[in-house]
Amino acid sequence: MKNFLPPSLIRKNDTKLILLVIDGLGGTTNEEGFSELDVANLPNLNELASKSSCGLQIPIDYGITPGSAPGHLALFGYDPVKYQIGRGILEALGVGLEVRHGDLAVRGNFSTLRDGKIVDRRAGRIPTEECERLVKKLSEKIKLIEDVKVMMKAGLDYRFAVVFRGKELSDKVTDADPQINGVPPEPAKPLTIEAEKTARIINKFIKLATEVLSDEPVANTVILRGYAKFPQIESFDVRYGLDAVGIATYPMYRGLASLVGMKTIDVTGFSIEEEFRLIKEIWSYFDFFFVHVKKTDSLGEDGDFEGKVKKLEEIDGYLPILLELSPDVMVVTGDHATPAVLKSHSWHPVPVLLWSKYAFRDDVKKFCERECAKGILGTIPALAIMPLMLANALRLKKFGA
Amino acid sequence: MKNFLPPSLIRKNDTKLILLVIDGLGGTTNEEGFSELDVANLPNLNELASKSSCGLQIPIDYGITPGSAPGHLALFGYDPVKYQIGRGILEALGVGLEVRHGDLAVRGNFSTLRDGKIVDRRAGRIPTEECERLVKKLSEKIKLIEDVKVMMKAGLDYRFAVVFRGKELSDKVTDADPQINGVPPEPAKPLTIEAEKTARIINKFIKLATEVLSDEPVANTVILRGYAKFPQIESFDVRYGLDAVGIATYPMYRGLASLVGMKTIDVTGFSIEEEFRLIKEIWSYFDFFFVHVKKTDSLGEDGDFEGKVKKLEEIDGYLPILLELSPDVMVVTGDHATPAVLKSHSWHPVPVLLWSKYAFRDDVKKFCERECAKGILGTIPALAIMPLMLANALRLKKFGA
Repeated sequence: MKNFLPPSLIRKNDTKLILLVIDGLGGTTNEEGFSELDVANLPNLNELASKSSCGLQIPIDYGITPGSAPGHLALFGYDPVKYQIGRGILEALGVGLEVRHGDLAVRGNFSTLRDGKIVDRRAGRIPTEECERLVKKLSEKIKLIEDVKVMMKAGLDYRFAVVFRGKELSDKVTDADPQINGVPPEPAKPLTIEAEKTARIINKFIKLATEVLSDEPVANTVILRGYAKFPQIESFDVRYGLDAVGIATYPMYRGLASLVGMKTIDVTGFSIEEEFRLIKEIWSYFDFFFVHVKKTDSLGEDGDFEGKVKKLEEIDGYLPILLELSPDVMVVTGDHATPAVLKSHSWHPVPVLLWSKYAFRDDVKKFCERECAKGILGTIPALAIMPLMLANALRLKKFGA
Repeated sequence: MKNFLPPSLIRKNDTKLILLVIDGLGGTTNEEGFSELDVANLPNLNELASKSSCGLQIPIDYGITPGSAPGHLALFGYDPVKYQIGRGILEALGVGLEVRHGDLAVRGNFSTLRDGKIVDRRAGRIPTEECERLVKKLSEKIKLIEDVKVMMKAGLDYRFAVVFRGKELSDKVTDADPQINGVPPEPAKPLTIEAEKTARIINKFIKLATEVLSDEPVANTVILRGYAKFPQIESFDVRYGLDAVGIATYPMYRGLASLVGMKTIDVTGFSIEEEFRLIKEIWSYFDFFFVHVKKTDSLGEDGDFEGKVKKLEEIDGYLPILLELSPDVMVVTGDHATPAVLKSHSWHPVPVLLWSKYAFRDDVKKFCERECAKGILGTIPALAIMPLMLANALRLKKFGA
């Protein structure tokens, strides 16, 4: 599901665009035949829908359930099948490590070493707080290996992420992970000549970490895997001529925004109202505002139909804060559906509304799946959203004479 | 119109899926402005549609009228533009010859040879019964040429099909057909070195056949053309992890099912009720049931609007037999439209309904073109149906993290 947007069509102006992503927005019908959006009381979204072009969007393709990364890349206009982001990068973004062009990101486990063998690859599944203590301990001792900077952050339980920043790093290295318990540690081996330095750095890191952890009773070594280079991905300003910013309470979504070259604002712990109000403060500095709201997805994953309905109503209540900024183009959609019925992400198309002075006002009066399906946008690939936003901002030139 | 379904997303479970193909299901409006589905009384299909996601599907692309083979391949999720099945294979499948991997299938004509010239390529258009007698005569005498098994079956009028089964057979051979009357027979010639054996086998077959037919007054030789190898096509179980079975009264549709690796059940002469009831007997042996009903297409081709309406009503009456099996996913659609108005296959999109516990129940209450067009599926490529069925059976993993 590709879109067509040659760079020669891009033009700049002083319009402002908001992309509000309500994570896991869409759903499917429950036993009574209603989705979360069917029953939610959403006066502001419904009023906006009444003035907008509405439709459904398909993040990847028919029947395909997207992870968060492909779901967002598609909304940002980057083909998620072409740009598949490596696990190490996603892990690093998820824990909030900054990742830049040229960086190598890696997933790590704390593990237990006894008599030269990895006896537990997960170090007895130590709790997250213990992991944080150990990562702090390592971070204080290991900051530079040769000319390569080392940055670490704890994840859940025994997991952590490492970002290596330096010249000539490669992901063409074998996992330093024996895969099973009861065998000796596995060193990283280069798969190409260019990867020799990286393998050496990885193995030095493990050696140093094992020395630093030598006084730990359980988590006394580390294993590393899932190497991933920062993807070769054109930045938002180059691709669209937009100064873009991503505002999200979770590091993963700021990370995805920074992957495509957006600036990001850390609003960890902010309420939805605070998150929306912040945008006014930075309104003059950017053209494009990616605003992410997470909790709808989490409630869908919990199977909490009523909770998701209430969260939608809460978001709806704060929508006027964004509308008062008078954006030129405003899109509301999700990165994928998360039906409470399924307790997981799903393949269902996601409602989308596009408001601008030039958008066709169709007959949709209610922002829900069944009504949006009858909207003038029809069912579109998510990749169509950026070209439609740019067109409505009069930021695209005519194609051909 | 491609779909995206990487093999890495497939997972297995114990769900059961039914794909009911009502051949030539869709239509177009007659002079009064109604299609066959508009006027048919279909209480069971309408009730199922009310609980399902509905839409229209396009077998190949806008404006393209599908033959039976591409229509079915698209429903099975195989790009019909990529997998173009050779005429010889279709002829063999159509007359009910089994075709396996490695086989070479060929179309044949009985012809008339006089004074070293083919004077009639169609042997005076002999009737089908005469063709059957001649094929029987040939079959008794020609069973093996070198190490190659020979299987034949009569088609309509002067036509027949031959399947050659042996090692190193090739379709890179010129037609053993002079194309026009009044010239000498044309031997098959190899187009590659690897095809030399095949050309020799073909020419030996013609020589043997001409000897066997030497006492026939009119049909005293044969010409052969349309060589086709069994296509390199991934089987249904490898592609989808599904143990699939095809149930059809006509050999062509069993043949198409077997092309994609389905088991098939010969229900020649069964009524629709008998065909549907049989599925209960084999319910525990398979995951996926392709059930084919033919007569709607034939009545459409006859221009018999009322007859097609009655046949649709008859099928509707037996639908509960399938629903009582409690499939996890049920799809009802056609391989193409056959409007009585056109008396032929057509390009019109075909209604589709998809029922599962997780399918979005849209507002469609009647299974017909104009209502399905308003359904939540929208207008989809036929190739989207298999991914949607698998998704609804929870047989697809998430794409990306």
